Amino acid sequence: MSIHATITQYARMLSNLDAWLQAAIAHAEAKKFAPEIFTQARLAPDQYALVQQVQSACDAAKYAAAYLAGQTAPSHPDTEKTIAELRARIAKARAYVEGFKESDFAGGGERRVAPAWMQGRSVGGDAYLTRIATPNFYFHVSMAYAILRHNGVALGKADFIGVKGWDEIGDW
Amino acid sequence: MSIHATITQYARMLSNLDAWLQAAIAHAEAKKFAPEIFTQARLAPDQYALVQQVQSACDAAKYAAAYLAGQTAPSHPDTEKTIAELRARIAKARAYVEGFKESDFAGGGERRVAPAWMQGRSVGGDAYLTRIATPNFYFHVSMAYAILRHNGVALGKADFIGVKGWDEIGDW
Repeated sequence: MSIHATITQYARMLSNLDAWLQAAIAHAEAKKFAPEIFTQARLAPDQYALVQQVQSACDAAKYAAAYLAGQTAPSHPDTEKTIAELRARIAKARAYVEGFKESDFAGGGERRVAPAWMQGRSVGGDAYLTRIATPNFYFHVSMAYAILRHNGVALGKADFIGVKGWDEIGDW
Repeated sequence: MSIHATITQYARMLSNLDAWLQAAIAHAEAKKFAPEIFTQARLAPDQYALVQQVQSACDAAKYAAAYLAGQTAPSHPDTEKTIAELRARIAKARAYVEGFKESDFAGGGERRVAPAWMQGRSVGGDAYLTRIATPNFYFHVSMAYAILRHNGVALGKADFIGVKGWDEIGDW
């Protein structure tokens, strides 16, 4: 199980997240309400709305890949207002994350990682990936899923994992 | 980043989940309602309630460890009705998962894993851990968190990640 395998899985989950947003648009059209209403939906008044959950999921994937490869992540300003714009944001994050090769992460587990929010402190690459980046990434994609599910979009576990049918897992 | 590091992270997240349940009990006591009301709370009528999210998170961790070590997981029947019983279920799953050593997972990434629900099919250990077990595990802990958050329990990202203060991450 390599760093690259985990980063590749983040890209798959971003692809799944994009599919949930497409399902949300279809749901809104069927119910005849504006899909943009979803962007401000949230589970609690003091929790991020959908738009910020999607932005945060994209950034979590982007920064994990950049930090562990010793690169500088591209800037993606949080300007999205519509589902279409969120889908474009996801596409940018996916393209960036999918551009990394196995060799880009050589020595990444031992690299000291110093995210800006740590204000000069640093953490080992393996601990960063396992204890911070992965729970943080899954947190935001899960909250996005939960917000859509709570608002009536017909999603299930197979959509979360990203399989059309459980049969296809046998090929992995 | 070893299989053991990921399984150890599942154990940490189960410990965090236990802390959220304790916060839920404190919230119920402060608001003078029965904490058991949380056990049947859910985000959508056709989604698992809290009790099943916690049971599923425990099982996800337990089975991942067992499958990747080539062992048979202990049976933990889904009989819990109270928060106290859910906390005991978490303690059982944690104790099982924490009992594994690095060496128990030697060759686990190449092992063929055949969960009962796959009905005779199998999947490689690395793909199982990265593409099924980890998203499935984080899905259920995140839904448990989301249900509590949606019902007013004061939780935040630091509680999800499991740090008392961000300062302590510098020691990892």
